[in-house]
Amino acid sequence: MAIGRETLENVFKVTNPKWRTAITKVEPNQIVTRGYSQEDLIGNISFSEMVFLLIKGEMPSKKESKLLGAVLVSFCDHGVTPPSTQAARMIASAGSPVHACIAGGLLAFGKNHAGAIERSMKALQEAFHSHESSDDIKTIARNFVDNHLKKGVKIPGFGHRYHNEDPRAKKLIEIACEYDCVGPHTQLAMEIQDILSDMKDIRMNIDGANAGILSDMGFDWRTGTGLFMIGRLPGLISHVYEEKVREPAFRKFFDMEEIYYDGIEERKVSYINFEEARD
Amino acid sequence: MAIGRETLENVFKVTNPKWRTAITKVEPNQIVTRGYSQEDLIGNISFSEMVFLLIKGEMPSKKESKLLGAVLVSFCDHGVTPPSTQAARMIASAGSPVHACIAGGLLAFGKNHAGAIERSMKALQEAFHSHESSDDIKTIARNFVDNHLKKGVKIPGFGHRYHNEDPRAKKLIEIACEYDCVGPHTQLAMEIQDILSDMKDIRMNIDGANAGILSDMGFDWRTGTGLFMIGRLPGLISHVYEEKVREPAFRKFFDMEEIYYDGIEERKVSYINFEEARD
Amino acid sequence: MAIGRETLENVFKVTNPKWRTAITKVEPNQIVTRGYSQEDLIGNISFSEMVFLLIKGEMPSKKESKLLGAVLVSFCDHGVTPPSTQAARMIASAGSPVHACIAGGLLAFGKNHAGAIERSMKALQEAFHSHESSDDIKTIARNFVDNHLKKGVKIPGFGHRYHNEDPRAKKLIEIACEYDCVGPHTQLAMEIQDILSDMKDIRMNIDGANAGILSDMGFDWRTGTGLFMIGRLPGLISHVYEEKVREPAFRKFFDMEEIYYDGIEERKVSYINFEEARD
Amino acid sequence: MAIGRETLENVFKVTNPKWRTAITKVEPNQIVTRGYSQEDLIGNISFSEMVFLLIKGEMPSKKESKLLGAVLVSFCDHGVTPPSTQAARMIASAGSPVHACIAGGLLAFGKNHAGAIERSMKALQEAFHSHESSDDIKTIARNFVDNHLKKGVKIPGFGHRYHNEDPRAKKLIEIACEYDCVGPHTQLAMEIQDILSDMKDIRMNIDGANAGILSDMGFDWRTGTGLFMIGRLPGLISHVYEEKVREPAFRKFFDMEEIYYDGIEERKVSYINFEEARD
Repeated sequence: MAIGRETLENVFKVTNPKWRTAITKVEPNQIVTRGYSQEDLIGNISFSEMVFLLIKGEMPSKKESKLLGAVLVSFCDHGVTPPSTQAARMIASAGSPVHACIAGGLLAFGKNHAGAIERSMKALQEAFHSHESSDDIKTIARNFVDNHLKKGVKIPGFGHRYHNEDPRAKKLIEIACEYDCVGPHTQLAMEIQDILSDMKDIRMNIDGANAGILSDMGFDWRTGTGLFMIGRLPGLISHVYEEKVREPAFRKFFDMEEIYYDGIEERKVSYINFEEARD
Repeated sequence: MAIGRETLENVFKVTNPKWRTAITKVEPNQIVTRGYSQEDLIGNISFSEMVFLLIKGEMPSKKESKLLGAVLVSFCDHGVTPPSTQAARMIASAGSPVHACIAGGLLAFGKNHAGAIERSMKALQEAFHSHESSDDIKTIARNFVDNHLKKGVKIPGFGHRYHNEDPRAKKLIEIACEYDCVGPHTQLAMEIQDILSDMKDIRMNIDGANAGILSDMGFDWRTGTGLFMIGRLPGLISHVYEEKVREPAFRKFFDMEEIYYDGIEERKVSYINFEEARD
Repeated sequence: MAIGRETLENVFKVTNPKWRTAITKVEPNQIVTRGYSQEDLIGNISFSEMVFLLIKGEMPSKKESKLLGAVLVSFCDHGVTPPSTQAARMIASAGSPVHACIAGGLLAFGKNHAGAIERSMKALQEAFHSHESSDDIKTIARNFVDNHLKKGVKIPGFGHRYHNEDPRAKKLIEIACEYDCVGPHTQLAMEIQDILSDMKDIRMNIDGANAGILSDMGFDWRTGTGLFMIGRLPGLISHVYEEKVREPAFRKFFDMEEIYYDGIEERKVSYINFEEARD
Repeated sequence: MAIGRETLENVFKVTNPKWRTAITKVEPNQIVTRGYSQEDLIGNISFSEMVFLLIKGEMPSKKESKLLGAVLVSFCDHGVTPPSTQAARMIASAGSPVHACIAGGLLAFGKNHAGAIERSMKALQEAFHSHESSDDIKTIARNFVDNHLKKGVKIPGFGHRYHNEDPRAKKLIEIACEYDCVGPHTQLAMEIQDILSDMKDIRMNIDGANAGILSDMGFDWRTGTGLFMIGRLPGLISHVYEEKVREPAFRKFFDMEEIYYDGIEERKVSYINFEEARD
């Protein structure tokens, strides 16, 4: 009796899939992302809609699409002040290709530089998991601030090292109101601002505003740094391009006078070590 | 006569500016990018417009904005087939934070993976610098193809390792036509496709189509990889997120059986070296 | 009375030092590292001694120098099985320059891949902070294992996904004994191995052995990943070089058949969105 | 007639090896690198010997091992002046994990920062391919300098932005002489120095000296950046560690006063664009 091909294939498995993905299906001449063929997406949706679709898996509503666009625009650039921009330009000056400069810049999105957006999203999202169902937003906000003060930790999303009143935060909240997209997380952020502003003259920054808005749109806090990176990437690219076309190669970013040496002044390799190494 | 403080400060300059930038001016509570205050940009322009503004320094026309949106959407994702996506997911599996995974993925945007867009833009842009002014596009296209064939080099932007007919390229050209945005570079790409398609059944890929369109919009070819990275970043982020939430940590990407060792079989550290190292 | 130039300079400080460092003092024609002029170090100390000097700030004893050399050699290479090596080779195949390939490889030194050495050093070092002064090593080891089992967490530094008995660990311990360099941390690791080997047939791996040895040499656990990277870098470089000189550019690391798509099958961009995007 | 198992396996290939490597063979409880079992290498060879073995595939002689050690030591650190060190510390300050800081630092090893070693090795190695066999080293050196001057390009490996006489270069050449390891490439570098020193008071730097020495040891110029990275890695790690333990998180590397904005002063988003974006 002949052995069926299927049985054989079962025995000598061609290959087991190593990868699974629910994002994009690639077949010859056919690419389907989140269920939509890419031909259907190209020209029919905005890039902000694409960002929403890729990361959340669903198409946004018209309002969500516009609001996410505003969020991404708000992350665009902060001049040469952030370490990510400085690192990217230094790497450009050292003569690395654009993609390596950008990678180096993104590596500076560490917890002190880009971490606030995720910490703020996480804190706002968790505030609604832990509160009593009868609590109103004002009470949750009060508890939120008290808990942070008690622990002595900074409230992420409030205060800025350059701006007393971050102009981006104010505008983002206005847009969210205008689009009628203010949900509980943004409301909570606004209440927290009221408390902190009275108490310490501290206001919401871009991270706090976007944390509220993105949480209300249903983004998992773990996607916060990713969304920040999407918004900031065009800025980083324009800085790397500017460095490469306008500045001298391998320029000095710091002068000798800006460096202070505070280590051991002078000693000699001992005779013992010398002998060891030599023979 | 006493020397005024200003004169002194002029002599002993407190600090000389180390950085200059024409991109963004940061002042307390005021951030101005390419001449626009960010409050004015947030909510008023789309993210594609922001990309155009940052990289070209000018606001796009309505048509350019929509077309650039289509270009960015077209770069979105190609499943887990590209080395950049694979590298980013491997790094995620190894337990690095999101920004490090993305940086690692972008490092794979080397000349073999992401280089075609810039090479294609460069070739199309240079074709118009070197031709005789009396030449029509058909002649330029013919010379273009001949020159590449003579040198025995691949024509960047044509042919794809997975697709015989890249569905994204076709749609992009349709959109460019629909928006009445087809300029000489796109025309040249289309003529080249006609020649290559007759000659070798090879068609334009996504890089060729976008190289034509972006060149017609006036983008310097040196910005090509940057624009590709902007388009692909949301896809990379969704893959890293997927790897982190759906797959086991530190999974094996290759089995022992997939590795073939073809080096020296066996030898011993000689007595001489042994002694050297020991004492 | 004229104000002296020095006084003026004091008032209008040219620049304040931005950086301080205790590692290396650079002056014209003079470079002093950890107190030694580099001319004195070059040719007089081994590279392992340099590693010790840079990271610990002091010159090692003869035995420490040899033992650190053994530790660094032990990290050298594990073929193409680690994700760091795979990622570095993928990035090389994509056509990035060597330094970008290496950076990408190192980005895979995440907590699941390279984290065990630091977790193991930390656990061994903390075990001696928290125990009763009257406890002997056997008791500390027993408590150590019990605490991990109670919490249900893996004991870092024990067990290996490819090796039942890691040949490097065994040899490292032998060397440490031979050099008479076995201190309390290594002893603790050996006691833990005795318990785990009886209980679950699990033995010390390279991370466990090195964690003990490095802790006994006084390395802060925060330097563990750094030391691993130093040891592994030559291996990564040889892999990148091998990829570049022996393999075809942009080779496929996975076939289509190894990819399984488990997302949404097919849907269309709705009319609503279409309209939105278009106008 | 029964189909043999081999035939079947041929038809339904279990898996084809995806990777080949001549570096390390990994089998359960057995790891063999360049033909040596790792147990045999650990404790028996120095780390410099391991570097030589991994990259060249052969064990060095005693003298080569010591000389390579001197080369690696010479690359150790240059304080906080190099962009790689500055970038790594910035990324550390931004709160990224050690491996991401190091990766970011290495990304600054671009052609302007680390490129000189490879360019110098390449130039020295090519000088011997292109010269007439009857030429002596003095003639080759003279032609070498003339060719660079004619093309108006900098001679890699000579001159330094901080040192008039690089103390490392001088010592390296002394060591090479002492070990009787001066071959034609080092001789050529020394002759070039004689010419440049007379002509322009320019001397060999660390890259020129190491380029000669490494070329004489038979290292392909393509491994130059890799060897530099191995030598510098311990320094980078000590800087990242120093930044993390001694400096405040997210410190400002540049003050506002050090930034000069030279772009467009002020303009408004036009009504047209406003409308476009809004609806």
